[in-house]
Amino acid sequence: MNGVAIKKAVDIDEIKQNSDNTVMIEACVHKIRTMSEFSFIILRTAKYLVQAIYEKDKCKKDLEGLKEGCYVRVQGHIRQDDRANLGIELQLTDFEILSRPQSEYPLNVAHKKLGCGLEANLDNRSVALRNPYEKSIFKIQEGVVSGFREFMLKEGFTQVFTPKIVAAGAEGGANIFKLDYFEQEAYLAQSPQFYKQTCVAFFDRVFEIAPVYRAEKHNTSRHLNEYIGLDFEMGYIDDMYDVMEMETAMLKHVIHYLNENYKEELKLLGATLPVIDTIPSVTFVEAIELMKGKGGKNKYDLEPEDEVLLCEYAKQNWGSEFVFITHFPASKRPFYAMNDKDDARFAQSFDLLFRGLEITTGGQRIHDYQEQVGKMKEMGMDPEEFTHYLNIHKYGMPPHGGLGIGLERLVMKLLNLKNVREASMFPRDVHRLEP
Amino acid sequence: MNGVAIKKAVDIDEIKQNSDNTVMIEACVHKIRTMSEFSFIILRTAKYLVQAIYEKDKCKKDLEGLKEGCYVRVQGHIRQDDRANLGIELQLTDFEILSRPQSEYPLNVAHKKLGCGLEANLDNRSVALRNPYEKSIFKIQEGVVSGFREFMLKEGFTQVFTPKIVAAGAEGGANIFKLDYFEQEAYLAQSPQFYKQTCVAFFDRVFEIAPVYRAEKHNTSRHLNEYIGLDFEMGYIDDMYDVMEMETAMLKHVIHYLNENYKEELKLLGATLPVIDTIPSVTFVEAIELMKGKGGKNKYDLEPEDEVLLCEYAKQNWGSEFVFITHFPASKRPFYAMNDKDDARFAQSFDLLFRGLEITTGGQRIHDYQEQVGKMKEMGMDPEEFTHYLNIHKYGMPPHGGLGIGLERLVMKLLNLKNVREASMFPRDVHRLEP
Repeated sequence: MNGVAIKKAVDIDEIKQNSDNTVMIEACVHKIRTMSEFSFIILRTAKYLVQAIYEKDKCKKDLEGLKEGCYVRVQGHIRQDDRANLGIELQLTDFEILSRPQSEYPLNVAHKKLGCGLEANLDNRSVALRNPYEKSIFKIQEGVVSGFREFMLKEGFTQVFTPKIVAAGAEGGANIFKLDYFEQEAYLAQSPQFYKQTCVAFFDRVFEIAPVYRAEKHNTSRHLNEYIGLDFEMGYIDDMYDVMEMETAMLKHVIHYLNENYKEELKLLGATLPVIDTIPSVTFVEAIELMKGKGGKNKYDLEPEDEVLLCEYAKQNWGSEFVFITHFPASKRPFYAMNDKDDARFAQSFDLLFRGLEITTGGQRIHDYQEQVGKMKEMGMDPEEFTHYLNIHKYGMPPHGGLGIGLERLVMKLLNLKNVREASMFPRDVHRLEP
Repeated sequence: MNGVAIKKAVDIDEIKQNSDNTVMIEACVHKIRTMSEFSFIILRTAKYLVQAIYEKDKCKKDLEGLKEGCYVRVQGHIRQDDRANLGIELQLTDFEILSRPQSEYPLNVAHKKLGCGLEANLDNRSVALRNPYEKSIFKIQEGVVSGFREFMLKEGFTQVFTPKIVAAGAEGGANIFKLDYFEQEAYLAQSPQFYKQTCVAFFDRVFEIAPVYRAEKHNTSRHLNEYIGLDFEMGYIDDMYDVMEMETAMLKHVIHYLNENYKEELKLLGATLPVIDTIPSVTFVEAIELMKGKGGKNKYDLEPEDEVLLCEYAKQNWGSEFVFITHFPASKRPFYAMNDKDDARFAQSFDLLFRGLEITTGGQRIHDYQEQVGKMKEMGMDPEEFTHYLNIHKYGMPPHGGLGIGLERLVMKLLNLKNVREASMFPRDVHRLEP
């Protein structure tokens, strides 16, 4: 094996430039439309729908036996056709059937949209994703990850991989999955919090792209029990605003990256990406004030309805689809959040809301050992149970902060999807463990 | 927040080109060496060790109070010094202590190598990783992932994210972690096998970089219970050799990528990367034959000792540090492996061995519904239990195959580390769940 003759993926630009006009394409038979004199055969590749024309006297094989869902290797001549999707049409001269399905699709895969309910979509996920609209959602997911990654590396962050089987939850509460780990009790990580902080001690800036597990019983359109976290953590910050600036620059980069590299998918999905100039920022107390008389629920945390209200306000008054909310009540934020120096009732902690939904939680973390031990005790926690975590403070940490973004929530809102499950290839919720 | 004034990471090239010669660096005090007239202060950033000189009359602050493990913001003048590590030296004019450790390091972080045993290293992992040798291992890990990713995207593979909480194991056997998932029993994915196959039906080629869970009780130098899998799966293959060609080209790319982008880390680690020209390939039966009289254990599978023997043979006779072993006995490979057309006792399944260790398992998968149902029955499995998986065959799949690579094993062997735990930032084994 010398890796020289690796098989190439189908590339339409290469096909268009093919000098002798004869091409071979491997694809799935997406749709067959039989006319009186000829048939249209729409071929589906990873990225394209290619229109092929079958005429009996121009093709070596008979059309009989070919059906939707077959995977084929076809040969033909390319001709320009402005009416066709890609500006080209393929006149079939030969084809070989590589595999045949056992059954017809249970969904309308070849329709522009599936047109079925979400449950039918998810129950038949391996078929639903053959629909170009559905699968484009996951090209956008790929693009968000690529843009995030490219930005992080450019800014000197190191990509890390931290364990998801852990001895203790980082975010507290009962929303944690338990696991039998040989003779011990273990959990699935609610976030990479402890580990990404650990890495700041030697890599200064780190990011991770990995699953996050939350055993929340909420069965809503915004909750998943397993999702992909885009996390970063950075050292040498002055305050949480450094983290917020970094997120703003990152989001600008991601949106630019999508517009540059995923034009076709965005068009197919009918998506209009947000334009980011400046993201406004208000404190929690200001936010509560803003919502007075608007149905806001004046309390110690934000409810989903509040997030919608605040986004509407930000859009109308500041022309932004994003808004940062800072200085949440310390009691509502985790034990590792640094308290505000001027008013310890509030934490150096923020959320980012986008199109009515919280997509990020972040903030400055405590780096001083005594301060962290003190806050744990105040919150009724036993520092003895966090010896390994406290070692990072004990042996020194720079001032640092970071955040976590739910990938599926971000994609959901970028594409204006109604349910976060649509942005998860194989979603996991309270009831769904398959496929 | 407009993301314009984001904080930049320390970049030595920028510092060297600084016109007025005055710089600010944020770093950790790695080592202080006090001479009679001045002190050397070695500053550790994410990527560099910068030599700074402290002289009492040239610095605004007194050295007292500054100790190893402090995180600082220093100012100084750059001067060329060929004796220094980076060719520059920093004459300190001022510094600010950003944070102080509570205790001294329990390990020799500033030594070239830690010099402690593996257990002490892992028990104090958050400190051990502050040692430049230790942390460089994970820059190489990052580089392998970047190179893998870059190659895959270039070849038309789509990056996917598939669930790790699953209803059934893909690889069979008892080596699977159980989980309480609300009212249901769930497992941690032993591989993304079912899901990456599913994705081939619509993305043609996919890859995933994600954790893999194996509840194996082996407590050896080559086993981890949680590791990062580099997986890919590709459609429209003629046979498994297409997969092996793709892997060969990918590995060439990764090694080129490391040599280009991680020179300093490779030097620090004293690593010599393999040169790949052609990777030889032998069948399992041929491999057994080759080992006759050499202490090989003539059986139906390869043992660790066999892998060492075969790699020695490949190096001596074919000049390759890699060797593919193909056509394993079908009974030793998973139910989704396609049987060889000429001899059904063997599977279209291969391993890749590198420097004495299996780093990849791959092969061609069954794409035909009846063939898959038939093989399941032959192997005593109940197809009813795999309805969702069998849907991908039922509704059609192109001929396809793929592989999985253990990231930590690959890094371990690239760097000639003795234990796979050294290549895992926070390893999980039968006994270790912390930190």
